[in-house]
Amino acid sequence: MASKILLVDDNPDDAELTRLALERHQLGSKLVHLVDGAQAIDYLFGADADADAVARDIRFIILDLKLPKVDGMQVLERIKSDPRTRAIPVVILSSSNQERDINRSFDRGVNSYVVKPVQLDQYMDAVSTLGRYWDEINQQRATA
Amino acid sequence: MASKILLVDDNPDDAELTRLALERHQLGSKLVHLVDGAQAIDYLFGADADADAVARDIRFIILDLKLPKVDGMQVLERIKSDPRTRAIPVVILSSSNQERDINRSFDRGVNSYVVKPVQLDQYMDAVSTLGRYWDEINQQRATA
Repeated sequence: MASKILLVDDNPDDAELTRLALERHQLGSKLVHLVDGAQAIDYLFGADADADAVARDIRFIILDLKLPKVDGMQVLERIKSDPRTRAIPVVILSSSNQERDINRSFDRGVNSYVVKPVQLDQYMDAVSTLGRYWDEINQQRATA
Repeated sequence: MASKILLVDDNPDDAELTRLALERHQLGSKLVHLVDGAQAIDYLFGADADADAVARDIRFIILDLKLPKVDGMQVLERIKSDPRTRAIPVVILSSSNQERDINRSFDRGVNSYVVKPVQLDQYMDAVSTLGRYWDEINQQRATA
């Protein structure tokens, strides 16, 4: 049973809000917080990582787009083009509501794209719903 | 702005429950109900259909797997292999919780897979959350 939720976001305030929102469904302890795209790639595919085993242990990934070192779009491409990681649900959580970012993400196989609401209560509500949906409503892929 | 929700399900009782659950978020009127895979393919790609325009008008698709004529897995493959329809969010809503169905769906690029709960109140809750998530929380792709 996959136990981890990967959060890739370099903004510490947003990451903390996301953690608080996920904690509404007792998901905070599952969170692995990475702060740039290179860390995400390394976590998933690094020399020390067994990508199959790492992937099996991830329920879903919350991925920001504007990230230092390697941007989120490249991380998404990498995840969705590798058969070992392709089936992991990836949700973009970004402040960008630009057509180009949204369409490129869907073209590259993102599972869902959520724009970070500006208002605090709406941010908490959206991320809390996101967490519940991907943790409880979406069926986890089998990883026996 | 995409206005339609496609529901492909041959079971009239399940389809009616789905409609009622979506209506909790005033989404019932957006529903286009198709009862087999051939109808779905025809709706999306038929001779009379302009697939680009049809795709632009669909917010998301709720797709059963066990369908008459053309099964849901084939419909999913067709949608996700055509650049005109690939970006439409597709959620499998199936009574199957078999590993093979779940993994094949994720391998073929399904956005999400939801197992139909057996208990009525859980069915209503899951489909209602599904509807709200894909209508409100997920950002619609831009289709200008």
